Amino acid sequence: MTVSMYKISVPIFVQYLTSLSAVLDKAAAFAEAKKVEPSVLLDTRLAPDMFPLVRQVRAATDHAVNAGGRLAGADLPSFSNTEATIPELQDRIAKCIDFLKGLKPDAIDGTEDKEIKIVFPSGATREFTGQSLLLNNSLPNFYFHCSTAYDILRHCGVELGKRDFMGTPVKV
Amino acid sequence: MTVSMYKISVPIFVQYLTSLSAVLDKAAAFAEAKKVEPSVLLDTRLAPDMFPLVRQVRAATDHAVNAGGRLAGADLPSFSNTEATIPELQDRIAKCIDFLKGLKPDAIDGTEDKEIKIVFPSGATREFTGQSLLLNNSLPNFYFHCSTAYDILRHCGVELGKRDFMGTPVKV
Repeated sequence: MTVSMYKISVPIFVQYLTSLSAVLDKAAAFAEAKKVEPSVLLDTRLAPDMFPLVRQVRAATDHAVNAGGRLAGADLPSFSNTEATIPELQDRIAKCIDFLKGLKPDAIDGTEDKEIKIVFPSGATREFTGQSLLLNNSLPNFYFHCSTAYDILRHCGVELGKRDFMGTPVKV
Repeated sequence: MTVSMYKISVPIFVQYLTSLSAVLDKAAAFAEAKKVEPSVLLDTRLAPDMFPLVRQVRAATDHAVNAGGRLAGADLPSFSNTEATIPELQDRIAKCIDFLKGLKPDAIDGTEDKEIKIVFPSGATREFTGQSLLLNNSLPNFYFHCSTAYDILRHCGVELGKRDFMGTPVKV
């Protein structure tokens, strides 16, 4: 049961994307009960220059999919990046989970030193090893955006507890 | 450069505790510039039934120290748990970082299947393996509390960017 690049990535991403989806279900139910537009929740930010909830969710999915896909050398799924409703975000999350579940442990294990070069839309590049991408970029950012999505909804008054954030570990 | 229980724990905890400490420095400077008591920031919560900043910081340090100490089988450092000022929280963070840096990689690597039983003050117990403790409990909670501490300060208007949250990777 040695820890491995796969074990510290895919099952973690799947677990927390699943809990994020369940948290959004509770947000939808809250909006309905309070008779507010769900977009009010999705547009909420904790500070004027922070991402609103809708972008926190998209960012979390991006970090998960990009990490898994780059480590495994798989083509990344594409998204419209215009998802603006809870059902659309749920679809995006479901697509990410399917993609991640389709990645084979063998394709990710052993990628610690794999050279990964990321080219940003600006043309700037950043070089990583598989390990530095996952440990120093993808996982912290993923957790940050999942936590902040939860924090925004707690701040809006949605009844959530830490258990909703944590979800249930995924069997691998 | 195989990933290991040490590499996914101690250097991560040290990196994000160091950045948390730097974030608190910025909070102290903000309070001084705005002529508000730092306790106003430390008592801020995102929801009435969430921990205020001071408890978010203590919780982050607890998860880091408890994980490192339990995996390594080291005596856990004790804290007053009454830290109520930014300097007191900084001292607590510094003490945690020193403790974590003192843990030897050999004492943590290979603890994937180590049986770890946690007895809570209520008398309830919870059993983990080293791997399940770290991946399914300590790391997600650690990141959650570090993210939420940052989110609270952003919500208060402290000028911070994602770079302040991320800090700098620790060489191991």
